[in-house]
Amino acid sequence: MAEQKAISRFPVPELGDLPDDVREKILGVQEKAGFVPNVFITLARRPAEFRAFFAYHDALMLKETGSLSKADREMIVTATSAKNGCLYCVVAHGALLRIYAKQPLLADQVAVNHRKADITPRQRAMLDFAIKVCLDSETIGEADYAALREHGFDDEDIWDITSITAFFGLSNRLANSFSMRPNDEFYLMGRLPKAPKPAN
Amino acid sequence: MAEQKAISRFPVPELGDLPDDVREKILGVQEKAGFVPNVFITLARRPAEFRAFFAYHDALMLKETGSLSKADREMIVTATSAKNGCLYCVVAHGALLRIYAKQPLLADQVAVNHRKADITPRQRAMLDFAIKVCLDSETIGEADYAALREHGFDDEDIWDITSITAFFGLSNRLANSFSMRPNDEFYLMGRLPKAPKPAN
Amino acid sequence: MAEQKAISRFPVPELGDLPDDVREKILGVQEKAGFVPNVFITLARRPAEFRAFFAYHDALMLKETGSLSKADREMIVTATSAKNGCLYCVVAHGALLRIYAKQPLLADQVAVNHRKADITPRQRAMLDFAIKVCLDSETIGEADYAALREHGFDDEDIWDITSITAFFGLSNRLANSFSMRPNDEFYLMGRLPKAPKPAN
Amino acid sequence: MAEQKAISRFPVPELGDLPDDVREKILGVQEKAGFVPNVFITLARRPAEFRAFFAYHDALMLKETGSLSKADREMIVTATSAKNGCLYCVVAHGALLRIYAKQPLLADQVAVNHRKADITPRQRAMLDFAIKVCLDSETIGEADYAALREHGFDDEDIWDITSITAFFGLSNRLANSFSMRPNDEFYLMGRLPKAPKPAN
Amino acid sequence: MAEQKAISRFPVPELGDLPDDVREKILGVQEKAGFVPNVFITLARRPAEFRAFFAYHDALMLKETGSLSKADREMIVTATSAKNGCLYCVVAHGALLRIYAKQPLLADQVAVNHRKADITPRQRAMLDFAIKVCLDSETIGEADYAALREHGFDDEDIWDITSITAFFGLSNRLANSFSMRPNDEFYLMGRLPKAPKPAN
Amino acid sequence: MAEQKAISRFPVPELGDLPDDVREKILGVQEKAGFVPNVFITLARRPAEFRAFFAYHDALMLKETGSLSKADREMIVTATSAKNGCLYCVVAHGALLRIYAKQPLLADQVAVNHRKADITPRQRAMLDFAIKVCLDSETIGEADYAALREHGFDDEDIWDITSITAFFGLSNRLANSFSMRPNDEFYLMGRLPKAPKPAN
Repeated sequence: MAEQKAISRFPVPELGDLPDDVREKILGVQEKAGFVPNVFITLARRPAEFRAFFAYHDALMLKETGSLSKADREMIVTATSAKNGCLYCVVAHGALLRIYAKQPLLADQVAVNHRKADITPRQRAMLDFAIKVCLDSETIGEADYAALREHGFDDEDIWDITSITAFFGLSNRLANSFSMRPNDEFYLMGRLPKAPKPAN
Repeated sequence: MAEQKAISRFPVPELGDLPDDVREKILGVQEKAGFVPNVFITLARRPAEFRAFFAYHDALMLKETGSLSKADREMIVTATSAKNGCLYCVVAHGALLRIYAKQPLLADQVAVNHRKADITPRQRAMLDFAIKVCLDSETIGEADYAALREHGFDDEDIWDITSITAFFGLSNRLANSFSMRPNDEFYLMGRLPKAPKPAN
Repeated sequence: MAEQKAISRFPVPELGDLPDDVREKILGVQEKAGFVPNVFITLARRPAEFRAFFAYHDALMLKETGSLSKADREMIVTATSAKNGCLYCVVAHGALLRIYAKQPLLADQVAVNHRKADITPRQRAMLDFAIKVCLDSETIGEADYAALREHGFDDEDIWDITSITAFFGLSNRLANSFSMRPNDEFYLMGRLPKAPKPAN
Repeated sequence: MAEQKAISRFPVPELGDLPDDVREKILGVQEKAGFVPNVFITLARRPAEFRAFFAYHDALMLKETGSLSKADREMIVTATSAKNGCLYCVVAHGALLRIYAKQPLLADQVAVNHRKADITPRQRAMLDFAIKVCLDSETIGEADYAALREHGFDDEDIWDITSITAFFGLSNRLANSFSMRPNDEFYLMGRLPKAPKPAN
Repeated sequence: MAEQKAISRFPVPELGDLPDDVREKILGVQEKAGFVPNVFITLARRPAEFRAFFAYHDALMLKETGSLSKADREMIVTATSAKNGCLYCVVAHGALLRIYAKQPLLADQVAVNHRKADITPRQRAMLDFAIKVCLDSETIGEADYAALREHGFDDEDIWDITSITAFFGLSNRLANSFSMRPNDEFYLMGRLPKAPKPAN
Repeated sequence: MAEQKAISRFPVPELGDLPDDVREKILGVQEKAGFVPNVFITLARRPAEFRAFFAYHDALMLKETGSLSKADREMIVTATSAKNGCLYCVVAHGALLRIYAKQPLLADQVAVNHRKADITPRQRAMLDFAIKVCLDSETIGEADYAALREHGFDDEDIWDITSITAFFGLSNRLANSFSMRPNDEFYLMGRLPKAPKPAN
């Protein structure tokens, strides 16, 4: 298994051929994370989609308002991506979850069965809702909103939980169809006392 | 049923309170369609997400390259949104499908059972793939790509089919969770000889 | 798509070759509706089955007793036929639903996601029960009956809801297997202010 | 468990109160079978539905044409009723299957897993098709018809297989919702060398 | 169907070639039941697995402690094996259920739809739990334990219900994959007033 | 999250109270692995079941014959346990898989989506079969056996794949119902160049 694994089914663009803003976004994440997550490489060949994808991503995942912590958001991504069988997102966002939560075991727990994870009842309710949005959104109703409000989530938080789940449902489908491979670096991140810094 | 139905669970922003680019986008679609589709009103309260959503939408749905016609794209949206039980997208994009395809019966056929629709074998293969991406993307593999190539789709087309399905899977989940109501205008569009012009 | 579409996989009988009662039934519906719905043509080649089918249909759908309105009955047919992916019944009975309910948007709403339809809580309970009979009848129990009684349905009504759902489950399977095509006339019925009269 | 079990959730009519033709049908089956199967008692309270139900039943199950034997038809009923979790039909029609096929083990095999039953490849194909009509009729297509034709079934036979499955899907839903209890007599019929005569 | 049916896909060992303890176990059951159930013959070719299988089986099914009767245990096996489509276990353990419960109709009821069976509310709760362990064990939680405790089951009983379901889930998968055939003798056991003695 | 997490819902026995053979088995694994995997502690309170469980486990997982490597066997366990949502088995056997395969990324890949894992076509076929046994064993048939034989598996190997899947289906259900917690030690095993020795 020593050969270089393909990043995805699609050809990889040369960094020099990319529009400036796309290239700069990629160089920025590389500087921060120490490597370029493959989702950047995969999507860069379609710059307009790349820009929209990361603008949406950043609006949902980097926002500073609301009651969802960064760990909460990555937990939603990890749990729902596992339901969609998306290797890329479980591995990449599981890494971020470990780092933000400072819980090295949490991502594996949430990916396999969130009911057995070391999480709070509030987080359990958040994941129950997110998984319902992921798998059966047509049945979401007032009772589901009420259940989250009982745990202190307000409607803006529910918008966030919905949108994060929905956005990564998009991401999961791209990664599954394109056979996007998670970078090897993600697998170990956050598992050891001194974790590397998070990347997307 | 004469009372005004809510556009979504969330409060509706005043047009005057919106950032200029968001307001202009809304006024533009209103001028073109004769009304403002509720998805614009619903998402406008989160301008960053609004911009990313429509940037992504436009990149996929308005592109001029590849072999997918506008009717093909709207057909993908209609068929997969029906699988997700998304009233907004079936009604709104079913209207566009009728208009672009100039087939007044097509949207209802595709929404209920695409196997019984008046479509070509090529379109049938396209929808089979899209529905698999929608419902079971983790099992998409080389054989699914090969089946599309046999009908003359190239890999850029398959990227498009995947991305349109994935993007509207996002949209479906937002609309379902937010209880986004399709505008009454959509229901009749494209059903009569003289159809109104398409809106988003 | 200008060519004449097949009514079903099976050959169509000549009207003159049919038994008198079958022919008269067909001529009667033609006079009332202005066209012959394809289900009459499709089933007429087996007169004994034709007679039993329409006798059962009429006993359930034309009865004057009980608290289910004609619109309620057509709503059950539309919602459950959509779950079975039956194009014929969704299109034909969706037309009748629009006409009886005098709500041009209702059939599309109920076919895609009855939870988002402009219906009363009583109708919502009726459809929840009908969909359970349609999809998972083995789990129907006393609690399901009790839920309907809370909305004022009595046991005769529940018999009706059950039987309508069950009968159209039969009809849906015939139409799906035989590839029965809905008449083009149905698609537009009840969508405009002046609707044509209902046909079966 | 010695007390008399209810025949169904609904009250049982007095034989003397029934219309003549309904009463005679019931007395006829009683004379032939030695007891009155509960489906007759349950449905008799709605004479018009009773007549249509048994007219349809008899048209499909008593017909003398086509290549389906009586055992084949009862096998379809037993296998598909098991998929619908319908105790009444599995027990009653399993009895008939044992008698017509003269195979005392066959009904239990077909009810639990038709793939392990002592049947011919032709019967296996017939049941595969019937179960698809039962569980997923919207996906039935030309390939399914072709598979049956390879085993010597013609289109009239396929009509029969479809209709029997569809009719008992109706019957299963009634029995499940009404909690119709199979007569105790059915359980042992056809299991011993000297079997009693078949009843409906 | 007079020819000898294969016991399973795998070759059958000669009794004389088996280790003494395995042979004695087989002879013991033969003496008690009057025949050798095919599961003994099928598994004997792998003596270590045979010993572990029957040691586990006997520990769960022959134990004298706890509140589960022998009929309760066989009822769990029959109901869950039906969900797994396991002909061997439904037929063999249905026979034992009839005998232990002294209810000739019970096994067929439980195999087709336990909600319609002549059982107590306590047994209904037990089967609801067992079926959830069988089909969806990842969602078992504190509420499921609480529901059983309300019916007087203690935690040791719940351990037993879980383990019996889990063990026969193993057995079902072996029987299904190996195509293990139930002995003809099982089908009639316990159906007549004077039943033969139970065998494994 | 610093508090000691419960090993399972059930009380933990004192080592000194256990039968000698059970205690010795536990001490043996502790010496080899450096800790006692919680499955030993959980099951020890029922010594007869403990003995049968580990006898079966060892017969399947420690056998030296056949063409399945130890890594293959742990891969089957990891993939199928993920389908059953069993945190204990995915984490514990994922650790063993990493160690035996000397592939630190493999367990996460197989747990999330085996179609995207760095495995051979032979292993892919093995996992496809195992997952079918896990999720839908009633449909396993001759074609499934033939597909494995094409990859060089013989019938004894297929027995092994079946039995390993079936045995861990049992284990998964116990762990899910009992809420058995994987030891923290497992999560990191085999992820770093110098891995600790495997434990059960």
